[in-house]
Amino acid sequence: MLKKIALINLLLATIGSPAYAAAPTVESLELSVNLVWVMLAAFLVFFMHAGFAMVETGFTRSKNALNILMKNFLTVSIAAILFFAVGFGLMFGDTISGLIGSTAFMLNGYGDIAFFVFQAMFAATCATIISGAVAERMKLSSYLLLTVAMTAVIYPLVGHWIWNGGWLAELGFTDFAGSTVVHLTGAVGAIVAVLFLGPRIGKYSGKKVNVIPAHNIPMGALGVFILWLGWFGFNGGSTLAADPSLVPSVIATTLLSTSAALIAAALYTQFRFGKIDPSISLNGVLGGLVGITAGCAEISLGGSIIVGLVSGVVLVEGIRFLETKAKVDDPVGAIAVHGICGIWGTLAVGLFSTSTGLFYTGSFAQLGVQAIGIVAVIVWVSAAAGLFIFALSRFSSIRVSEEEELAGLDFAEHGSNAYELKETLLSGGAAARMGEGDVTTGLAFRLNSLNGTPKKRKMT
Amino acid sequence: MLKKIALINLLLATIGSPAYAAAPTVESLELSVNLVWVMLAAFLVFFMHAGFAMVETGFTRSKNALNILMKNFLTVSIAAILFFAVGFGLMFGDTISGLIGSTAFMLNGYGDIAFFVFQAMFAATCATIISGAVAERMKLSSYLLLTVAMTAVIYPLVGHWIWNGGWLAELGFTDFAGSTVVHLTGAVGAIVAVLFLGPRIGKYSGKKVNVIPAHNIPMGALGVFILWLGWFGFNGGSTLAADPSLVPSVIATTLLSTSAALIAAALYTQFRFGKIDPSISLNGVLGGLVGITAGCAEISLGGSIIVGLVSGVVLVEGIRFLETKAKVDDPVGAIAVHGICGIWGTLAVGLFSTSTGLFYTGSFAQLGVQAIGIVAVIVWVSAAAGLFIFALSRFSSIRVSEEEELAGLDFAEHGSNAYELKETLLSGGAAARMGEGDVTTGLAFRLNSLNGTPKKRKMT
Amino acid sequence: MLKKIALINLLLATIGSPAYAAAPTVESLELSVNLVWVMLAAFLVFFMHAGFAMVETGFTRSKNALNILMKNFLTVSIAAILFFAVGFGLMFGDTISGLIGSTAFMLNGYGDIAFFVFQAMFAATCATIISGAVAERMKLSSYLLLTVAMTAVIYPLVGHWIWNGGWLAELGFTDFAGSTVVHLTGAVGAIVAVLFLGPRIGKYSGKKVNVIPAHNIPMGALGVFILWLGWFGFNGGSTLAADPSLVPSVIATTLLSTSAALIAAALYTQFRFGKIDPSISLNGVLGGLVGITAGCAEISLGGSIIVGLVSGVVLVEGIRFLETKAKVDDPVGAIAVHGICGIWGTLAVGLFSTSTGLFYTGSFAQLGVQAIGIVAVIVWVSAAAGLFIFALSRFSSIRVSEEEELAGLDFAEHGSNAYELKETLLSGGAAARMGEGDVTTGLAFRLNSLNGTPKKRKMT
Repeated sequence: MLKKIALINLLLATIGSPAYAAAPTVESLELSVNLVWVMLAAFLVFFMHAGFAMVETGFTRSKNALNILMKNFLTVSIAAILFFAVGFGLMFGDTISGLIGSTAFMLNGYGDIAFFVFQAMFAATCATIISGAVAERMKLSSYLLLTVAMTAVIYPLVGHWIWNGGWLAELGFTDFAGSTVVHLTGAVGAIVAVLFLGPRIGKYSGKKVNVIPAHNIPMGALGVFILWLGWFGFNGGSTLAADPSLVPSVIATTLLSTSAALIAAALYTQFRFGKIDPSISLNGVLGGLVGITAGCAEISLGGSIIVGLVSGVVLVEGIRFLETKAKVDDPVGAIAVHGICGIWGTLAVGLFSTSTGLFYTGSFAQLGVQAIGIVAVIVWVSAAAGLFIFALSRFSSIRVSEEEELAGLDFAEHGSNAYELKETLLSGGAAARMGEGDVTTGLAFRLNSLNGTPKKRKMT
Repeated sequence: MLKKIALINLLLATIGSPAYAAAPTVESLELSVNLVWVMLAAFLVFFMHAGFAMVETGFTRSKNALNILMKNFLTVSIAAILFFAVGFGLMFGDTISGLIGSTAFMLNGYGDIAFFVFQAMFAATCATIISGAVAERMKLSSYLLLTVAMTAVIYPLVGHWIWNGGWLAELGFTDFAGSTVVHLTGAVGAIVAVLFLGPRIGKYSGKKVNVIPAHNIPMGALGVFILWLGWFGFNGGSTLAADPSLVPSVIATTLLSTSAALIAAALYTQFRFGKIDPSISLNGVLGGLVGITAGCAEISLGGSIIVGLVSGVVLVEGIRFLETKAKVDDPVGAIAVHGICGIWGTLAVGLFSTSTGLFYTGSFAQLGVQAIGIVAVIVWVSAAAGLFIFALSRFSSIRVSEEEELAGLDFAEHGSNAYELKETLLSGGAAARMGEGDVTTGLAFRLNSLNGTPKKRKMT
Repeated sequence: MLKKIALINLLLATIGSPAYAAAPTVESLELSVNLVWVMLAAFLVFFMHAGFAMVETGFTRSKNALNILMKNFLTVSIAAILFFAVGFGLMFGDTISGLIGSTAFMLNGYGDIAFFVFQAMFAATCATIISGAVAERMKLSSYLLLTVAMTAVIYPLVGHWIWNGGWLAELGFTDFAGSTVVHLTGAVGAIVAVLFLGPRIGKYSGKKVNVIPAHNIPMGALGVFILWLGWFGFNGGSTLAADPSLVPSVIATTLLSTSAALIAAALYTQFRFGKIDPSISLNGVLGGLVGITAGCAEISLGGSIIVGLVSGVVLVEGIRFLETKAKVDDPVGAIAVHGICGIWGTLAVGLFSTSTGLFYTGSFAQLGVQAIGIVAVIVWVSAAAGLFIFALSRFSSIRVSEEEELAGLDFAEHGSNAYELKETLLSGGAAARMGEGDVTTGLAFRLNSLNGTPKKRKMT
């Protein structure tokens, strides 16, 4: 063993030695092991964006696939840069009266870069929730400006209040991994945007509720699996340390609550509609994840199952209510998943927390504080996002034209298609074997049409 | 450096301090680092379910895609909840005569929640193997009841015998990460179910073997990559500790053996059929993974390559034998992958183990014990699963009707489609640009038809 | 707490004790935590191959999907086995004059298996870059032989020069995670192969540049997300240790630079072509990742954003130049991404390194050394790969016949299709409900045609 250690040390020294050559100590190792845990969690939360992209793309129509993909990718990028420049400071900088952070912009004077990376992924998550709800009709440019507002200012303030010792934290408001901070904030931004936008063309005709089909549910299902995976980092990493007395129960409550929510959603659609509805059940997974996010660190394993069962039912009714009663057209169910289940999850802390919950203490105190926090966040986000979108809409429409919407945003905003045209997609080679029939579109076509010459031409 | 540590500690204290504030010790850090390793592994094994879902969906027909996705998602959920409630206790509780566990139900009196999470993912893996083999014809409800039996009772007993010091462990049976415990158990459950079900309509006409096409092999290929990734956690995490003298060789044998199996399967299809067969080669990856699972911790790197080469060839012949000779209709090749390669991998320990294998010791002892274990598991699982399915089939058919099978289980069991209809899928926007032609199906349609009114209607 | 530790230790001892029972020490724990970090990174780099496979498959035509998938899978397998047998020794063995390694073949006498696993994933990455550039026309067999040459010899020598103290390292050439070692090496191999192959049929007609469409951009977009995720391991793991003073900044520069590159590429296509081009923007992500790879450990966070902005613009112009001026037909843009951005990233160290860069020191020294390294690698790889392919082409054509190319490589080389035929794909069940019309192709068909009997027959 000693020989092996010596050999490895020698090799490390040869190949490219790590920067800290000093002898390890118990303290330095604690930093290292917590670092690995937080980095693993950050990578998983990053990967959630692939999940959101697949869910949102799969659950909408093929003619808008490229547009929604661009929205998801650009959200991550804009959030990372802006949270670095502005948002992190407003959220985790020294507080001004518990309301807003005022230091650490561009990490100035701030040392924990790993924590910044982890938190930047969270900021991006909050913003990307909106992209699903506004899919298939919001201009890319308007969406991106809203993302700027969300990640630079609106979300960081909520985070400051709750996660950096701000006024809501002072009140005792508890949200371990972000049912309210991240998910409800994103959902309120989403519903405000949707109310400005209105429903997609064809969604409602008079009193009739039409449904606009998903184009690729298996792709969406993959996205749900990726989100579930990523959520273990979202909740588990929020411990900020590889703590054996805390991490395992956070992961286990996340697993059990989500499993219960899926089962509940599936059975409830069976009970309600006579058959198990796959796309609502998949949303049940997401609702279950949001529902346990606030309380994953202080709800028992058994309690987490009950929280999940409620999440599943609340989600189904939430989707139906928003779609058929409130006439809010949310193509992927994001508002129900992140908003309604976010509220439920935040309240569930006040009921099921083993230290402060009603069912354990008999006291309504925590539940009351949770409700205050929910109201405060709804008021702030709806006011700020509402004002921002209102201002935006004074300059130009935030929605594509009717013609563009019918044509599809991929063609209208990008002059492009997500998939091969008929001949080639179907052929599996067969049609293509006939000749060069498939060499007709793509980049050159796009470049041409983008240059205003919507036909083939020489490109020398 | 000291300043930095102080800064970080300060920040952690401010932002949301970890629960264990006590000074770290060598012992507490060992727990932490092993925790991170086991959690990483558990997440990877969880993600294998996304891999199974993509493989099974991609390798079957589009008309059954939603149904198989639901089977995969619900398997994870049911396994997690039931393994928590019952299975974990039967598997890892205090033994009764080496046959069955009798404590730790609902983790009562049990402290290692991380270990439970890791093992719950394994239980779900065992069950989900069946979903591929019974695809495109087994009722969702019957499949879910079988999953209950597998994860609550049938699999936990096998696990108790081998992984909790039960009678097979006493005999010296060795299966490091589960070639037999997980994969053979799942495969035996699968073949029993398939024998009850019979082949899909159109698979065999007289002596003719038809083949029913995969609808999306790239999706299946992604699933294979995800499974390969996840398997590093499956095998690597089975060390239960971040042990530098064990983990690297486990990962390396897993990588090399699987690589060899893919090359062998590809070259063998070239030799046997004149061309490299992509879908069999992809199954070669999975066969290689199953084949090294039992011995990954005690087979040399060179030995693992030989084990993999054999896995690849065995897999190809296994698939052909089952499909064309035994007339067992297994849409995704799960029985060959998990059963035949599971047996091979278990026996390979008796041949290639550097401590007990025939090729190193000259003794057949280990090989004999491995064979006994294989027989015991086959007998138990086929008897238990067989009885269970037999009982089930007395109440109602476990197979959908011929009409439903032809219509596709997505329509029959869920009243829904996995993909956009023709007009929109093909259009890439083009057809859609004509008008609202694509606003005709989806959720509203489903809700309608699910309510027994299979046409559009008002939804107020 | 003590009680809990005792409990867990007891459990671990019961369930399957880790191999190292010796009491942990600070030194053994340092090995463990670094092991977990390097393994996590290795898994992520492995997963990058799923990303490459999805990008390359999605960005080419459906008739060649299986072929490119096979190329990607077999690249991983061949690289793992050959790097174990030969490449690792040539790269990390004891040096002969700083030119080539001469020991550690098959890890003989070498103890750090974890390091081998991590490096084997890198070798495979270098090789797989080529598969995208030669897509849709290079014979599978010729491609695989080139992969053998790349992973066994060509890449290991570059690695030895730069990462094992070879002559370029002696000069002071710096490439932290492989902008040159991995990406430029792969890209030079790719352009050499493409020059031998020529463009795909129909790509250029006279002076006209046609563009051949991608068949599934959402699949490619998923691949880009997977690559971004994997790159955190690629760059982060290159620290080889869970070093809190290095890892976080490596991850943060990777995140920020890539984000900046995507934003730059998107805005630059808007500026250049009037609309945001999705597929070029996605390549902007990859260009941004390659661009920060060399300098991720010694460029500031602010500097990384500038490096990324340049990467994005360079990538767009690089793709256009290669496609329309140089007439290099690279279906997925691999040469621009890995070659042009690889050069840029390597030079960026000479500009932005906080310790040696021009902008910090005022000295051109590092920049000069970086340029020398780039030229050396281009000369060596183009000569070696060129000679190898030239020799190969003397025996038989490295390109499929015109007829095979038009038919698609899936049919020509594998007798198979990646997707369901028209009737079933479109039906979503509808057409299938008519009867067994969809039971006509697939494995049985393939087995038949592979046996030289391209029609259905009995298979007893």
